[in-house]
Amino acid sequence: MYLFSSIFGVFVFDEKFNVVEEALFSSLEEYRNKSDIIENLKDKHKITQELNENALKTILLYFKNNKFFSEFYDKNLQLTKSDLKNSVGDDTLLIRATNSVEELDKSINFLSKRLREWYELYNPEFSISVQSHEKFVEEILEKEKEELLKELMINVADSIGADLSQEDLEPIRNLAHQIYDLYQLRKGTLDYMSVLMEALCPNIKAVCGTIVGAKLIEHAGSLRRLSEMPASTIQILGAEQALFRHMKTGAKPPRHGVIVHHQLIAKAPDRLHGKIARALADKISIASKVDYFQGKFIGDKLRQKLEEKFDMLTK
Amino acid sequence: MYLFSSIFGVFVFDEKFNVVEEALFSSLEEYRNKSDIIENLKDKHKITQELNENALKTILLYFKNNKFFSEFYDKNLQLTKSDLKNSVGDDTLLIRATNSVEELDKSINFLSKRLREWYELYNPEFSISVQSHEKFVEEILEKEKEELLKELMINVADSIGADLSQEDLEPIRNLAHQIYDLYQLRKGTLDYMSVLMEALCPNIKAVCGTIVGAKLIEHAGSLRRLSEMPASTIQILGAEQALFRHMKTGAKPPRHGVIVHHQLIAKAPDRLHGKIARALADKISIASKVDYFQGKFIGDKLRQKLEEKFDMLTK
Repeated sequence: MYLFSSIFGVFVFDEKFNVVEEALFSSLEEYRNKSDIIENLKDKHKITQELNENALKTILLYFKNNKFFSEFYDKNLQLTKSDLKNSVGDDTLLIRATNSVEELDKSINFLSKRLREWYELYNPEFSISVQSHEKFVEEILEKEKEELLKELMINVADSIGADLSQEDLEPIRNLAHQIYDLYQLRKGTLDYMSVLMEALCPNIKAVCGTIVGAKLIEHAGSLRRLSEMPASTIQILGAEQALFRHMKTGAKPPRHGVIVHHQLIAKAPDRLHGKIARALADKISIASKVDYFQGKFIGDKLRQKLEEKFDMLTK
Repeated sequence: MYLFSSIFGVFVFDEKFNVVEEALFSSLEEYRNKSDIIENLKDKHKITQELNENALKTILLYFKNNKFFSEFYDKNLQLTKSDLKNSVGDDTLLIRATNSVEELDKSINFLSKRLREWYELYNPEFSISVQSHEKFVEEILEKEKEELLKELMINVADSIGADLSQEDLEPIRNLAHQIYDLYQLRKGTLDYMSVLMEALCPNIKAVCGTIVGAKLIEHAGSLRRLSEMPASTIQILGAEQALFRHMKTGAKPPRHGVIVHHQLIAKAPDRLHGKIARALADKISIASKVDYFQGKFIGDKLRQKLEEKFDMLTK
C-alpha cells in the first residue's frame, strides 16, 4: 500500500497501483491542513512504507490524465494567489509606512525651503530668526507680519520686506497650510507605525524608538532578515556606501548606519559614537531575535543596560 | 555760484563757497523727486556753470563735518531698505510661484510612487490599470476595492491583494488625501500665476501658456533679462547642460530648453522640433520685448502666425 498526496487530495494505492481510497481537497484550507488527513489514512490502511522511486513513477503516471490538467492549473493559481495575499505581514505594512515617512520628510524639507524663499520677499527678518521649518510654518500661519516683527523688536516700517497685497499673500499662506498638513500626516503615520511595532516588535521599539527601529526593519527587508543578522551588520545597516568605499579604497570603515539617529548616539560626543554604536547594535540584535520568535518583553531591560553603559562611558 | 545735491538736500554755494541757500529733503520721496527742486534753484540763482574738480573738492570739505555723519548713515540705510522693498516686482512673485509649482510636482510624483507601492499590497490590479497619478488618487479616494475591481471585471476573491483592516487602510487613505490636496494647491498656484502674467506679460502668456512662459522668466531671472535675450538664447534656455556638453565635446547642440514643453513642440513629430523651436523662440523674443515695454497686446496674432506655420510644416 502506498500513500500519495498532491494539490488535489490524498490518495491510497494498493500494490497494483489501483486507487483504494481518495480524499479530495474541497478547499485550500483542507490542503493546508492535509497532515491530519494523511495521518488518518495512514492509520486506517496501516501504511508504514515510504514511496520509493519506482512506485512514485507509476503513481505519477496515474495523474498524467487530461481530466487533472485544468484543475491542476486552477488549483496552483489559487494557491499562489492565496500565498501572495497572505505574504503581506505587519512588517511589510511597517516598511511601506516608513518609506512614506521618509518621502514626507523630503517633501516637507524642499517645500519649506521654497516657502521661505517666497515668504522672505515679504518678511525676511522673521524667516531668518527661526531655524525649525515646523515652527516657522506654524508661526506665519498664526500671526501677522506686525506681531512677528514686534517679537523681534523690529518696527514694521523698518522691515526690508515688501508690502504684499492679500492676493499675493494667499498662495504663500496656502503653501504654508499644505506643509502644516504634511507635518500632521507625518505624525499620524508615525503613530500608526508605533501601534504596528507594539504588536510586531515591542523589544526593538523599546530599544530603538519608532523611527530608528522601523528604518532598521526597512533596510533589512523584513523582521526575519533583521533577526538573522549579526550585530556587526546591524551596526552599519544603511551605511552600505561607506562600507564599500572602505573595502575598495581602504577608507575608514563606517561606525554606524541608520542607528546614528538613535538618541544615545546623537547626543554623545563624537569620540564615543563607535563604542555606543557597537553596544546598541548588540542589544538590537538580541531584541530582534526575541521579537521574531515572539519571546517575552525584555526591551525595557535592554534599554536600561544601554543607558547605564552610556552613563559609565560619559563619566 | 555752484549747485550741489546729495542725499541731504540741494545746496547753493557762492564763489567763496558759503552756503547761500539750502533745501533739505525731509523724506525719501523728496529725494526721489529732487530734479524739480534742482531746476527751481538753478533758475532762481541763474546757475549755468557745471561743478569743476576743484570746486567739488572744496564743497565736499563742507560736508566733512560730524553733524552730517550719523544722518548720512541713517539716510543711506533708509534708502537701501526702501529700494530693497520696492525691488519685489510681479516677476519676482511669479518666479517664486513657479519654483513652488516645480517643487510641488516633484513631491506629488515621489509621494504618489510611495502611495502606489503601499496601496498595491491591498489592490495591485487597480493600481496597474491606471497610468495617471492624479486619476489613481481620485479613484481610490472615491471608490471601494470591490467597485474598482468590478470595473476591471475582476472578482474580489481573485485579487492577489491582501485584505487589510480599516486601521491599516486609514494611513494609506490619509496619504492619498494629502496628495489630492497637493494637486489642488498646484492648480490654485497656477491660477494665481495666470493672473499675475495677465498683468505682467500678457503677450508671453498668449504665445507660451502659463507654465512655459513662467519657466522662461524664471530661467532668465526677470522679465527684463528675458526681453534682452536674443531668440537663439531663449530657444535653449533651460538646456544649459546640453549646451556646455556641445561646446566641450562637440556633441549635438540642444534644439530646445524649457520650450520643449510647449504644446506645439510636444505634439509635433521629432524631426520638426528644431524648426518649430526656432520659430517659437522668435515669437517669444518679440512678445517679451512688447511686454517689458508695455506695448499693446499682439500675443494672439503671434500665436496665430505660429500655428499657421506649424500647419504648413506638418502638411
